[in-house]
Amino acid sequence: MSQEKLVISIDAMGGDNSPKVVIEGLSLVHKKNPDIHFLLYGDETKILKEMSKFPALKDACEIFHTEEFVTNDDKPSHVIRNRATSMYQAIDAVKQGKAQAVVSAGNTGALMAISKMVLKTIQKIHRPAIVSIMPHEQGRYVMLDLGANTECDGINLAEFCIMGNIYAKCALNLKEPRVALMNIGAEEMKGKDEIHAAAHILKNSHLNLNFIGYIEPHEIPHNKADVIVADGFSGNIALKSVEGTCYLIMKLIKNSIKTSLLAKIGIPFFYGVFKKLKKTMDPRLYNGAMLVGLNGLSVKSHGGTDAFGFSVAVENAAKLVANDFIGSIRRELENIDLDELSQEAYYEVY
Amino acid sequence: MSQEKLVISIDAMGGDNSPKVVIEGLSLVHKKNPDIHFLLYGDETKILKEMSKFPALKDACEIFHTEEFVTNDDKPSHVIRNRATSMYQAIDAVKQGKAQAVVSAGNTGALMAISKMVLKTIQKIHRPAIVSIMPHEQGRYVMLDLGANTECDGINLAEFCIMGNIYAKCALNLKEPRVALMNIGAEEMKGKDEIHAAAHILKNSHLNLNFIGYIEPHEIPHNKADVIVADGFSGNIALKSVEGTCYLIMKLIKNSIKTSLLAKIGIPFFYGVFKKLKKTMDPRLYNGAMLVGLNGLSVKSHGGTDAFGFSVAVENAAKLVANDFIGSIRRELENIDLDELSQEAYYEVY
Repeated sequence: MSQEKLVISIDAMGGDNSPKVVIEGLSLVHKKNPDIHFLLYGDETKILKEMSKFPALKDACEIFHTEEFVTNDDKPSHVIRNRATSMYQAIDAVKQGKAQAVVSAGNTGALMAISKMVLKTIQKIHRPAIVSIMPHEQGRYVMLDLGANTECDGINLAEFCIMGNIYAKCALNLKEPRVALMNIGAEEMKGKDEIHAAAHILKNSHLNLNFIGYIEPHEIPHNKADVIVADGFSGNIALKSVEGTCYLIMKLIKNSIKTSLLAKIGIPFFYGVFKKLKKTMDPRLYNGAMLVGLNGLSVKSHGGTDAFGFSVAVENAAKLVANDFIGSIRRELENIDLDELSQEAYYEVY
Repeated sequence: MSQEKLVISIDAMGGDNSPKVVIEGLSLVHKKNPDIHFLLYGDETKILKEMSKFPALKDACEIFHTEEFVTNDDKPSHVIRNRATSMYQAIDAVKQGKAQAVVSAGNTGALMAISKMVLKTIQKIHRPAIVSIMPHEQGRYVMLDLGANTECDGINLAEFCIMGNIYAKCALNLKEPRVALMNIGAEEMKGKDEIHAAAHILKNSHLNLNFIGYIEPHEIPHNKADVIVADGFSGNIALKSVEGTCYLIMKLIKNSIKTSLLAKIGIPFFYGVFKKLKKTMDPRLYNGAMLVGLNGLSVKSHGGTDAFGFSVAVENAAKLVANDFIGSIRRELENIDLDELSQEAYYEVY
């Protein structure tokens, strides 16, 4: 896999300021990784205009003109069958084997829907999930599902654990990630039935997985687990609560500085502290959520990110390709039948 | 109601450092509110020993000796029928009409279980919920359920909205609180069926309630709603995610200051900023979660809080008594049948 040429297809028209941010982002990736090849889908004239600012990038790119593109207001059900859009074409390139991953900063719902339809779910996986990397006090962890599945059963959650485990190995270079199910208590009986069911399946499955039990959200920053698994509703609630709290604290600090002459004088002393804080908490560093569970890598960049943020998403995709993320999931599942495992776990309880 | 003497019963043996913290906390309340009378349940010798440090407090207290008390390891199912504990006695004082509210820093599960059994659920309310006050960038909001009900239906959520609305009026002195349902998207179809059902009931119910629709967790700090309603699982996830993120950011800031001589020199300049931040985010200021929906006020103080934190919980209880919280809920429900409303809403959909 690593000897093959790394090719990533790009929806050049996705995101708030495309294709400008996209091309600028790719130029950052190209500087660090000159061997990656890009297939760009979108308005050729606009792409070439932006690319003229980064002549070194040109040789690493192949441009495929599309007349149409998906907007943020487009409904997934509406765009899913329109093969003419830059997003569809970029995803299809992965299916055709022309690229090993696709990155788009466009409409999330559309990207998920088209990816699912075109790339198809991996055999034995019931439902794909959205995964992302997040910061804790000593490093990073992987969290899923962040919103693809509002309701999940025990098998779904167990599958997310398997995929999250491999994602953490490939994206965070961990040998034996600690996998935990998010819950509202540590005791076995706390929380929802589907979480208990998933725990039961994982404990009795002899999977190649370091399952450590339940984790409560306030424990996550303490570096207690590397993979946190939840249903898409709870995961999304947790993710957005973290986002809101970061905003709140930084806003309160900014407001106090504004009204304090003393603090204003002190800013140069604290410059390093806030710079370091930003270096850990900067959302651009965690850009690139992924729909895992498909026969192909489909990465979603934040629509409002800048060139650096977009480059992080592309590099994240490249890393997962280099570490054969999809092959690893397939191999892991080769000898496992989760439906059967679930039945076994079920009979054991009764 | 306000002419009646305000009496609060206290489980003097609850919490990590009782009765020391409890008595010290009551002395703080007494200084500000000399008219509140306390019924103290617990080990008389220990209580009197602590009280000797606060002679002024003595006249405001009546002590009822109990031999037994609930520990943190006790299972709710085990202690629920033991009438001899300080916790049971303190709760029972509310049922007997001797006190208008009870405050305990003891075992949460036990307090909830005994309160529910002794005080009983208000007629027309299907399930009580845990409510607390939390900070946003311009003030405070009320959130429920924080963990009493893992699974909820539309009627439960609608009832939480009604109770949260009155709680915000009584505890935050708001005239027309903005009530929102926590969800993972603003669109009508996003999220779970029970949330859609609750929204439908509220919109069609002609309740005396300012329902503003859905709110996503990252929007909460922006002062968009005064009452946030969720099922107990999601609410608890959100609460603990906020807690974890506060810890993470403060920990990252502390760590950088530790390793930076420059920042250490700058601390005096930023002293005011951090003091102000603490003044908003200090968890002691939001101490005193409550089980709403019962025929009596039962307030849970954090077990590890200090005297100031405990005093906040007691003052919170006193405020709700003075504003006739329970009478207001009863009056609000007098002319409303939520089951019927739910049926009407149901038929309207089909």
